[in-house]
Amino acid sequence: MGQYDFIANAFSFGFAVMAAATLFLWFSRSQVAPAYKMAVTISGLVTAIAGYHYLQIMLSWDAAFSVTNGTIETTGYAFNQAYRYVDWLLTVPLLLVELILVMRLSRSETVSKSVTLGGAAALMIILGYPGEVAEGGATRFLFWVLSMIPFIYIVYQLVVGLKGSISKQPENVRGLINGAATLVVVSWLFYPIVFLFPLIGLTGGAAITAVEVGYTVADIVAKAVFGILILMIAMRKSEAEG
Amino acid sequence: MGQYDFIANAFSFGFAVMAAATLFLWFSRSQVAPAYKMAVTISGLVTAIAGYHYLQIMLSWDAAFSVTNGTIETTGYAFNQAYRYVDWLLTVPLLLVELILVMRLSRSETVSKSVTLGGAAALMIILGYPGEVAEGGATRFLFWVLSMIPFIYIVYQLVVGLKGSISKQPENVRGLINGAATLVVVSWLFYPIVFLFPLIGLTGGAAITAVEVGYTVADIVAKAVFGILILMIAMRKSEAEG
Ligand SMILES: CC1=C(/C=C/C(C)=C/C=C/C(C)=C/C=O)C(C)(C)CCC1
Ligand SMILES: CC1=C(/C=C/C(C)=C/C=C/C(C)=C/C=O)C(C)(C)CCC1
Repeated sequence: MGQYDFIANAFSFGFAVMAAATLFLWFSRSQVAPAYKMAVTISGLVTAIAGYHYLQIMLSWDAAFSVTNGTIETTGYAFNQAYRYVDWLLTVPLLLVELILVMRLSRSETVSKSVTLGGAAALMIILGYPGEVAEGGATRFLFWVLSMIPFIYIVYQLVVGLKGSISKQPENVRGLINGAATLVVVSWLFYPIVFLFPLIGLTGGAAITAVEVGYTVADIVAKAVFGILILMIAMRKSEAEG
Repeated sequence: MGQYDFIANAFSFGFAVMAAATLFLWFSRSQVAPAYKMAVTISGLVTAIAGYHYLQIMLSWDAAFSVTNGTIETTGYAFNQAYRYVDWLLTVPLLLVELILVMRLSRSETVSKSVTLGGAAALMIILGYPGEVAEGGATRFLFWVLSMIPFIYIVYQLVVGLKGSISKQPENVRGLINGAATLVVVSWLFYPIVFLFPLIGLTGGAAITAVEVGYTVADIVAKAVFGILILMIAMRKSEAEG
């Protein structure tokens, strides 16, 4: 019961943060130079999409259990894990696009990096889904391995590939952009680790609580905190470029 | 059960993409020159209309089946296919108008092409509907043939008729406009093919899944991806002419 409520509260918190971040980012859009408006628009879009999915997740959680006199029973409607994947399929590529846009590379570099990194991110999510819904541990592990390939590619690109472009950024934002890239790598690492929990025997109420609350915290860092970092970078660069 | 959920997730994904694309397009409207604002406004309108219909489709899907202890039963409310046709009747002509507007032809050409291409698109949808709801295969096929006439006319116009106008476009967008016209032809081809599935004996759960998920993917390409292409064309032309 405590766990059930705690998870419901975490989802509600997730929704509130995403909705608030969306409004904040879109209001602040008018305060950045035209070149950076698209990055800020997309930051707000990502949190908006996440807000919608937290609403769906809340409803699905509500529908999956019924509470009678303090005892909880499953209703037969399965809690729909897929909303997370649907959300990620959209938002994970967009998060990388945000970062690329705020760097203001040349047009061809912007397009090529968005396509390769965004495509790798989409592939990573698509390859993870069959593992998530699989019954057997072996299948789960197989798709984890497959999904790790694009994941490692993205991390490599962020850590090594973007270094060159980062060194060309104005000095007053270099630290922030480095911070944003690091935040992506660190917060994203959480997901493939949690994915393995059922394989190492973590199940039951405590494990579900850890997974759902953990994902929610990671989502807030990867989307809302990251979005605000992007906004700060955009504002500083707008100022510097006058 | 897996198929039921998968379709529900595809619809939710469709809704999220359409809503996100709408917001993105309308926010970006401020970044194009006045001559192109209408094209971008309409792009967002098309995805907004589609978002509304995906919501209706989701609710209809939900109402058509009930899940008890993991087994699915039809409730007696039929899943309402007509929402797709209502949506297409509005959005398919508007998609062609988007493409015409972003080309910035002379006013009389804009009007005449919008009326003929938009009219043909509306006719195509109207002729397809009696076939969709028909009981017999013969009726289905008859209306398919009738609907193919305006379809082929539109494809011909896009492939041959617009060529002249495209060659007059500024060089930096010619590739994108060609891409947009090709995207229309390729993504639209999907619909009349899927329409024939029941005639070649494809029915049952797997076929319904293929049809619904396939339509959803095609809709996303034909509306959201296409809308973003239109925005990119509008932004580049605004810059060049600015
Ligand atoms: C590598 C890997 C995965 C990676 C998921 C990631 C990296 C998700 C990131 C989500 C974010 C950033 C969400 C929004 O904020 C999966 C799919 C769990 C499957 C197992 C292997
Ligand atoms: C030719 C033909 C059809 C064509 C439909 C098309 C081309 C629909 C396009 C829809 C789009 C582009 C939707 C929005 O994105 C029908 C009506 C299935 C009936 C059978 C014959």
